[in-house]
Amino acid sequence: MPQTIRLAVIPGDGIGPEVVAEAVKVLDAVTAGSDLAFEKTPFSLGAARYLETGDVLTDADLASIAEHDAILLGAVGGVPGDPRLANANIERGLLLKLRFSLDHYVNLRPTTLFPGIASPLANPGDVDFVVVREGTEGPYVGNGGAIRQGTPHEIANEVSVNTAYGVERVVRYAFEQAESRRKKLTLVHKTNVLTFAGGLWKRIVDAVAAEHPDVAVDYLHVDAATIFLVTNPARFDVIVTDNLFGDILTDLAAAISGGIGLAASGNINPAGDFPSMFEPVHGSAPDIAGQQKADPTAAILSVALLLRHLGAPELAERVEAAVTADLATRAADSAAAARRTAEIGDAIAAGVAQN
Amino acid sequence: MPQTIRLAVIPGDGIGPEVVAEAVKVLDAVTAGSDLAFEKTPFSLGAARYLETGDVLTDADLASIAEHDAILLGAVGGVPGDPRLANANIERGLLLKLRFSLDHYVNLRPTTLFPGIASPLANPGDVDFVVVREGTEGPYVGNGGAIRQGTPHEIANEVSVNTAYGVERVVRYAFEQAESRRKKLTLVHKTNVLTFAGGLWKRIVDAVAAEHPDVAVDYLHVDAATIFLVTNPARFDVIVTDNLFGDILTDLAAAISGGIGLAASGNINPAGDFPSMFEPVHGSAPDIAGQQKADPTAAILSVALLLRHLGAPELAERVEAAVTADLATRAADSAAAARRTAEIGDAIAAGVAQN
Ligand SMILES: CC(C)[C@H](C(=O)O)[C@@H](O)C(=O)O
Ligand SMILES: CC(C)[C@H](C(=O)O)[C@@H](O)C(=O)O
Repeated sequence: MPQTIRLAVIPGDGIGPEVVAEAVKVLDAVTAGSDLAFEKTPFSLGAARYLETGDVLTDADLASIAEHDAILLGAVGGVPGDPRLANANIERGLLLKLRFSLDHYVNLRPTTLFPGIASPLANPGDVDFVVVREGTEGPYVGNGGAIRQGTPHEIANEVSVNTAYGVERVVRYAFEQAESRRKKLTLVHKTNVLTFAGGLWKRIVDAVAAEHPDVAVDYLHVDAATIFLVTNPARFDVIVTDNLFGDILTDLAAAISGGIGLAASGNINPAGDFPSMFEPVHGSAPDIAGQQKADPTAAILSVALLLRHLGAPELAERVEAAVTADLATRAADSAAAARRTAEIGDAIAAGVAQN
Repeated sequence: MPQTIRLAVIPGDGIGPEVVAEAVKVLDAVTAGSDLAFEKTPFSLGAARYLETGDVLTDADLASIAEHDAILLGAVGGVPGDPRLANANIERGLLLKLRFSLDHYVNLRPTTLFPGIASPLANPGDVDFVVVREGTEGPYVGNGGAIRQGTPHEIANEVSVNTAYGVERVVRYAFEQAESRRKKLTLVHKTNVLTFAGGLWKRIVDAVAAEHPDVAVDYLHVDAATIFLVTNPARFDVIVTDNLFGDILTDLAAAISGGIGLAASGNINPAGDFPSMFEPVHGSAPDIAGQQKADPTAAILSVALLLRHLGAPELAERVEAAVTADLATRAADSAAAARRTAEIGDAIAAGVAQN
């Protein structure tokens, strides 16, 4: 039965439009002749839009995006230090606003070291894990404040808010991931210092673990977790952690597996109340924008996450297989290694058409 | 003019006593015949003391420690999961209590990849930087709380407190470090999300930078900083950052430079109101305690930091030179590589006596 998916597309700033173009190319190629059709609505959002109109994300934008079935986002953010953006926090006002408003409580970030990809680690071993990062709580809630700002007596506070409701739902999702993988789950927090938030996370993981006797559960402080990510990443299968620790660990995870040019992510509302959003982990990289230098692979792998989310795992696997093959070709062949953004997209689109 | 330093010695738990014994051995060797003499007072503190007496750190302990000129600490903490320790947070009640009570606002953590030491990185390059971690504020203040604890309606908050007073003094210290090194300072924070705390840090760094025109200053988000630590650690000279980010980055820094067995730290009160405390970054490692398996090098390098703090840089350099030579010997010679804790201490003590 053919199904039409309303897809909101937010190319964004910098290299965002370039990588999104390739992601859409691959999406079209892999779904051609399938049961899935996409009705795409472009949204012009980001630093460029702000500079033009003064708007970061209007209520009307948000309401319109929320009517879609899913979102594909490239990258948002202007040139660092642009004085015209000094008062616009595009990250908080747009990216985080979408994650919070659309209740993306799972920020899913798989990490795989693809064959042929060089890791900065001398002996990376088998790198294949997912980070399930909480997406709607923790230090990201924006509940900070300051008094006497700009004076020698300034006090600036940030509040990390953590709820049993919010932690339990993401922990349950992480255990489901572990059940479908190698059945190992690691909670990462800083329970010895952040005793209240850490205690809540620990108790909930322990409680949910009792329902999953076949999942091996362990715990690492966030500082120790960074050590294992560079000395023995193969020890990880599923990591579940809070919003800020997840932010830090997933950049490190991307780095050890070949760089953020390959790191995909899904901001997921598993309950389905709101559209989920798929985006590469990388930023807008204004320094190389418009030059066809960006690697669209992370955006293309985000399409695979989108397809899996839409219940089409076989299409997701075709995208992943085509990416794996393309990365191997690029690793083996210096002409292929020099390919430009659209050429990489072409190669992967051709790959999904064949496989 | 001979000077007698009253040194409080806290061997602590697990491998703490073993590594402290070697650190003291090297301290005695390097100061023999110098102007510095040490009057050492041992303090029995840590999980073992708690299990015996129920005390973590009494007011009398603290007052007595505070009367010393400096502190040498091994490691504290019992066997993870020991049910008798479930209600004792040794880290908060002892280690952090000392750092906060003694106003250790600089947590100084140098990172060097010594010749012959294997890094998990394939191409580490020149690793030689210091992290100046704030030690008395941020998410470590312990100002969290919870309501409805243990129920499905629990809310657990953690508050990060940051003051202009607290940030400015550590930032000034970091700029002084940069002046005496390669004149490069990197602020690490998460200004795009933690806008209040991040804004305070950024403004103070900008203001102090104006007084140090010869220091090159840049900024990295904490997530991006982890990427550079594994792809290009040579880019760093001095990193200044908050308490929690510093905790995370210094474990990662230790990992890329050969492990926490080599990472020294100083908890410093530069104003001299209270004794500063020197300790290896590693923990008590109860699994290998009492077996002479621990590497005392981090504790010995902490003695070098102590000596530099006491105004004896030439003694500090002798310790560092002896450590460098010993690490090279151990790297080159498999019999030396198998040395036990006391043998390593003996070798370095002999080295400082000669050099
Ligand atoms: C841009 C920023 C707000 C964002 C975050 O911190 O979540 C980014 O680093 C990410 O990981 O998606
Ligand atoms: C033991 C713990 C409280 C401590 C910290 O978080 O500061 C440790 O990790 C460190 O880095 O010294």
